[in-house]
Amino acid sequence: MAVDKNWKAAIADAHALLTSTLVRTPVIKSDSIAELLKKRLRESGLRPPSIELFFKCENLQTTGSFKLRGATHFLNKLSDSQLIRGIVAYSTGNHALATACAAQTASQHKNIAIPCTVIMPLTASPYKIAAAKRYGAKVILRGNNTADGALLAHKIVKLQNATLIPPSGDEDIMLGQATVMMEFADQIQDMGHQPLDLVLVPSAGGALLAGTGLICEGSGTLVIGTEPKNGGADLRIARQRGVRQGSINQDFTTIAEGLRSPTADFNWRFLCDSKYVRDVFGVTEDSIKITMRIMVEELKMVVEPSAAVSLSALLFNNDCLRLLSTRSSWRIGIIISGGNISVDKMLGLIQQ
Amino acid sequence: MAVDKNWKAAIADAHALLTSTLVRTPVIKSDSIAELLKKRLRESGLRPPSIELFFKCENLQTTGSFKLRGATHFLNKLSDSQLIRGIVAYSTGNHALATACAAQTASQHKNIAIPCTVIMPLTASPYKIAAAKRYGAKVILRGNNTADGALLAHKIVKLQNATLIPPSGDEDIMLGQATVMMEFADQIQDMGHQPLDLVLVPSAGGALLAGTGLICEGSGTLVIGTEPKNGGADLRIARQRGVRQGSINQDFTTIAEGLRSPTADFNWRFLCDSKYVRDVFGVTEDSIKITMRIMVEELKMVVEPSAAVSLSALLFNNDCLRLLSTRSSWRIGIIISGGNISVDKMLGLIQQ
Repeated sequence: MAVDKNWKAAIADAHALLTSTLVRTPVIKSDSIAELLKKRLRESGLRPPSIELFFKCENLQTTGSFKLRGATHFLNKLSDSQLIRGIVAYSTGNHALATACAAQTASQHKNIAIPCTVIMPLTASPYKIAAAKRYGAKVILRGNNTADGALLAHKIVKLQNATLIPPSGDEDIMLGQATVMMEFADQIQDMGHQPLDLVLVPSAGGALLAGTGLICEGSGTLVIGTEPKNGGADLRIARQRGVRQGSINQDFTTIAEGLRSPTADFNWRFLCDSKYVRDVFGVTEDSIKITMRIMVEELKMVVEPSAAVSLSALLFNNDCLRLLSTRSSWRIGIIISGGNISVDKMLGLIQQ
Repeated sequence: MAVDKNWKAAIADAHALLTSTLVRTPVIKSDSIAELLKKRLRESGLRPPSIELFFKCENLQTTGSFKLRGATHFLNKLSDSQLIRGIVAYSTGNHALATACAAQTASQHKNIAIPCTVIMPLTASPYKIAAAKRYGAKVILRGNNTADGALLAHKIVKLQNATLIPPSGDEDIMLGQATVMMEFADQIQDMGHQPLDLVLVPSAGGALLAGTGLICEGSGTLVIGTEPKNGGADLRIARQRGVRQGSINQDFTTIAEGLRSPTADFNWRFLCDSKYVRDVFGVTEDSIKITMRIMVEELKMVVEPSAAVSLSALLFNNDCLRLLSTRSSWRIGIIISGGNISVDKMLGLIQQ
């Protein structure tokens, strides 16, 4: 498949397919966090530009994350006979919820039974397990990471002649996730603003970041990937080396559990190319916690740690602050990827 | 001024004035809280109807509450010479922030200096005091309730020939607050839904509830007021007696501090009339806390206690549950009035 496909048209097609079943999640402008960012720049000895800051709230998407877009788009492409044989997914959480919900919705629309099995690690949050069950999925807990889940998923797929809904690394999944940025750009325009100068997007498998890069390519909107400094996909290191990292470094962990997956091969071709992704910034665990607190206080939003990584990079990564000091004005977008966290876990993380 | 004025047209005029400076706050649908409500009905031995539940998120309005609408609308009606002489407000919080922000915005638009003084009680949250200062207001702390603040405000107004922006009980304030429901109804239609069957609105001074009643009158949407069982405006008691309660019962307190003001005379004419407000339900302090937690967990939203009172009535007030059991399907709207609460205070309230 050629990289020079008309990706924007393909993403627009995906969006047209999804628009009736998905929430057009709101875009929120925050002047108080923009002020906080200017303060951070001054504290770092940099002259603050004028800043407008917008958040695309995919934490308010059904199932609590953008993952529903990719899963729904993938399922839309399956035939009824494929759906009836069943679908299978493995994930630490959000993709499992998304698959379960997409299967339930398709089942209702088509009035057919679609058996759905999701495999989650033993360490998955009880909150996400309960939610997947609410969407009617059979939940299997297996192993401590998604690699064990992947093995079992492939076995079930073979045994039942079912279809695997991959968490990332697939064109239909990526096209679905890319609709977030297409909508975000439309909404910025609807609000009467000029296009964004910069957008920050968290990356693990990389479909959301690749899709954002494809939408923004040639538009003048710089795309920045963000990830935990340690314990994530290490896309920064891969881009330096020019070689995809096929696995997670097990020496580290991160509270941003949703970003604890390696970069998928399909997405790498876009993620390694600065035409699509200008740069990638990493953030510390502490800065993620502080940022979650800021988002509760200033944005009135509950987000999971992965979804705080981009604002964390904007506020606390020195390379990012220096980038901001190179222009006199910025219109900045942040994609809030998800909000699936239990109250008690959130309280534990943001309590000072 | 006659009650039979064309109120809907007046509210539409207010909305047209406000639309360029205010956020069209998002409307969120929550299937998981609808499921929770059905579970509550079953637990109460009632047959659950089908339920669709929508939230109008004024916690995401600039300044964190709907109060900006009324204050901005009131300021819009003042002449430049009135503005230059200064404006004054007293409030426990949200109306003070709203007035400070509206003054700052008007000042920028008109390129004139508008001195703004807001008087808050000594017990006002440091969070709200800091926010009012950020909007450029002079903040005076005085007394333990808004009555002390009102006295001082009237004194300053007289001394400086300034204009008082009343927190409630004024036609222009009410018309501004009423735009919340006008927008909500438009958004429900834009989302492809039939009009709401029921909307729940918190009430203290009563402008938001009165305005909602005026918008919904004759539309088939039932309007229900909500308030703390004790420590609020006691609109339930006033309606039973047929006489407005002009002061707060000081024997009680409530965590819903934003609802700790008496019903304003101007609004009473609408609030006492079941043509505008079908019924008023009270909620316990404990149920407010539980509901704040549910809104964090299921809605990903941080709200102040006052803004949890309506959902609390829907989930935990027996009269409300019985009302729901009288129909086979309900499309229900809830106005989330504000989100101004510090992280630590929220944590203290929702921790189990």
